[in-house]
Amino acid sequence: MRLFARFSQGELRLTRIEAFSDGVFAIVVTLLVLELRVPALKEHASVADLAHQLIELTPKFLSWLLSFIIVCKFWLNHHHVLGLARHADYGFVWLNSIFLMFQSFIPFPTALMGEYVGNPLAVSIFGGVFALNTLLFLALQAYIVRRLIKPELKHTQDPHAIRKAFIGPASYLLGAAAAWLSIPAAFAIYFITPLFYITPPRPYGGAKSKSK
Amino acid sequence: MRLFARFSQGELRLTRIEAFSDGVFAIVVTLLVLELRVPALKEHASVADLAHQLIELTPKFLSWLLSFIIVCKFWLNHHHVLGLARHADYGFVWLNSIFLMFQSFIPFPTALMGEYVGNPLAVSIFGGVFALNTLLFLALQAYIVRRLIKPELKHTQDPHAIRKAFIGPASYLLGAAAAWLSIPAAFAIYFITPLFYITPPRPYGGAKSKSK
Amino acid sequence: MRLFARFSQGELRLTRIEAFSDGVFAIVVTLLVLELRVPALKEHASVADLAHQLIELTPKFLSWLLSFIIVCKFWLNHHHVLGLARHADYGFVWLNSIFLMFQSFIPFPTALMGEYVGNPLAVSIFGGVFALNTLLFLALQAYIVRRLIKPELKHTQDPHAIRKAFIGPASYLLGAAAAWLSIPAAFAIYFITPLFYITPPRPYGGAKSKSK
Amino acid sequence: MRLFARFSQGELRLTRIEAFSDGVFAIVVTLLVLELRVPALKEHASVADLAHQLIELTPKFLSWLLSFIIVCKFWLNHHHVLGLARHADYGFVWLNSIFLMFQSFIPFPTALMGEYVGNPLAVSIFGGVFALNTLLFLALQAYIVRRLIKPELKHTQDPHAIRKAFIGPASYLLGAAAAWLSIPAAFAIYFITPLFYITPPRPYGGAKSKSK
Repeated sequence: MRLFARFSQGELRLTRIEAFSDGVFAIVVTLLVLELRVPALKEHASVADLAHQLIELTPKFLSWLLSFIIVCKFWLNHHHVLGLARHADYGFVWLNSIFLMFQSFIPFPTALMGEYVGNPLAVSIFGGVFALNTLLFLALQAYIVRRLIKPELKHTQDPHAIRKAFIGPASYLLGAAAAWLSIPAAFAIYFITPLFYITPPRPYGGAKSKSK
Repeated sequence: MRLFARFSQGELRLTRIEAFSDGVFAIVVTLLVLELRVPALKEHASVADLAHQLIELTPKFLSWLLSFIIVCKFWLNHHHVLGLARHADYGFVWLNSIFLMFQSFIPFPTALMGEYVGNPLAVSIFGGVFALNTLLFLALQAYIVRRLIKPELKHTQDPHAIRKAFIGPASYLLGAAAAWLSIPAAFAIYFITPLFYITPPRPYGGAKSKSK
Repeated sequence: MRLFARFSQGELRLTRIEAFSDGVFAIVVTLLVLELRVPALKEHASVADLAHQLIELTPKFLSWLLSFIIVCKFWLNHHHVLGLARHADYGFVWLNSIFLMFQSFIPFPTALMGEYVGNPLAVSIFGGVFALNTLLFLALQAYIVRRLIKPELKHTQDPHAIRKAFIGPASYLLGAAAAWLSIPAAFAIYFITPLFYITPPRPYGGAKSKSK
Repeated sequence: MRLFARFSQGELRLTRIEAFSDGVFAIVVTLLVLELRVPALKEHASVADLAHQLIELTPKFLSWLLSFIIVCKFWLNHHHVLGLARHADYGFVWLNSIFLMFQSFIPFPTALMGEYVGNPLAVSIFGGVFALNTLLFLALQAYIVRRLIKPELKHTQDPHAIRKAFIGPASYLLGAAAAWLSIPAAFAIYFITPLFYITPPRPYGGAKSKSK
């Protein structure tokens, strides 16, 4: 169709797309802290009162920590994948925008889980949102690898990389399901999942990746 | 007048204007999520209570989604139009600042419509603000095309482009008017309007646009 | 003293200082809108109720508008002045940081004036804060012109520019004083003051400023 | 171990890491002002009422000022240290992310100390968080100096610099301890500590540092 063809037109400067994306990532991770509200105490509250109230915030601290690490991981993978592209077209910009939309949504499920940590629905929504974010990121990655990759990097890509990457969303969904049986199990799965993505992808085959 | 002449003086670096604009766009889209407040429930609320409260948030989710997409569209068109300019002068910077002022205003009508979705005034203010934003963007575009365009791009511009572009504000105003008859009709118009602007402008005449 | 000498050491990259400053400016102008809170109405409030509540927000809209324009003006002048510097040293970075500190403070007096528009103290604090900001900006400008200016621009600077620039803080302080007699007079002065700074500085003497 | 070896792989562009970091720094310093809430007064409150309420905010103003200056100092040192690196690897990115995580946490202890300035626990948490931030920064610095330093800068580094730098965390912890005896003493220590870091590091040995 002609309409779809037009999405592959237009060469956009990657620098401005990166600047906009970096802005969104930086704001998302920093806004997360706004959910850590200072507890409201009566005047002349004792040290013990304050300590007690701060300990009550533990689920909020954990949710904050978890979301911060995962958004940093997305930022890092985004950085890696955009480095593969030779330029950007409109299709890429829109996939990126939708991905950023759900990145910017992350403070909501984070606050929800922090507030209602004993409620399986709140905890499983958290996993669902991160599964969706990972899927959107994989769509962005697939689009770049298939249509916008720098010619010299074409042969360094593992053709099964995307398929293997589905372990991410599957793991978040597993955590979301586990929430209905055991909240700590869900938390454990959420903490383990990003660890698979914190190192650079293994170079494919025998190819020595000598990216500059 | 001498005063007006001074606005066309001063050559400003486009990179800093883009950085400032990208910052505003990124913060606007990310702040939108702050209106999605976690519902307040009594302690030990059941899964059904929470689910019910989240479903109640539907108008807020829709307003958020709509504004996010439209601001991304503005960012994309801004990116395109600034790519036409060879440099910036003070007139350009002020038009850009006023445009960004009303971009940064967007969280307010978004929250208003999300909160009072059944109130035609709230829903039509949303359309009015986006009509105003589109008009300000068109003023910025006209200023660049008439005074700051790169010489080599002069002949690739459709002289009727700006006039055709008035379909945007007209459509938002139509939605604003429709809100007084039917809220869902207004929403439908608001969702359709940005779709006209999500692909790059058609190359003008027989000219092959070979932008670099 | 040796301590002061060390502040003129260290060459810092202007690009990162600009990026940090642009970030602060962009966030300040965008946070201003957060003070425009959606009015709280009873359920099933009529159009007339909502319209009435929105009209009540007029002082907040005016404060927001005023602060937005003034911060944009500061950004523009900051952009101009940093363009004169050949590099940055530690003294410059600290002057810039203190200037940005009081820029980031602006949402507070803006909200205060929007909330208590009938209170002369609230209205005159607004003027006082902007007078302080202008003084800090002049300090930054003087530091650059005296110590960090690009050699080729040295002769294009009006030696009386800084002295003339004191009209800015004086005007804001006049507005702050006027608030105790007439609130509208204070507002009028606050609106007029930034207009003196929205065009580029007049080229000095007979020198043709051919900045690139 | 092979896992750790992979963290030293992957060459990432320093520009995007700087952009992301600058975004986080800029947002943190600007969000600090959100804790300075406009006081709630009855309608038709007198000037004296407002003045009284604003004076009550003094501890919040002091906390804001202190955190702003310290975050600017971290930004400045971050700028200096990243200038030493020839490129970035994954280990660096993760150390940087964890450092930024606790930078973004700063609004919380700032608000806590501003709200409960008479409570030794609140005041000592402030010092503890800044001690932790300084330690994380030192880890980042040590990583760069040992593994990523530009070859031409290797001999300009004082091998004892990191050890000497431990005076920072020690001083913040001293302030945290002092809070249990005297709140003003803790504040004094918090204000003095950053002053040790506001000038560039003294050039090492007899080497003339001729950085460009």
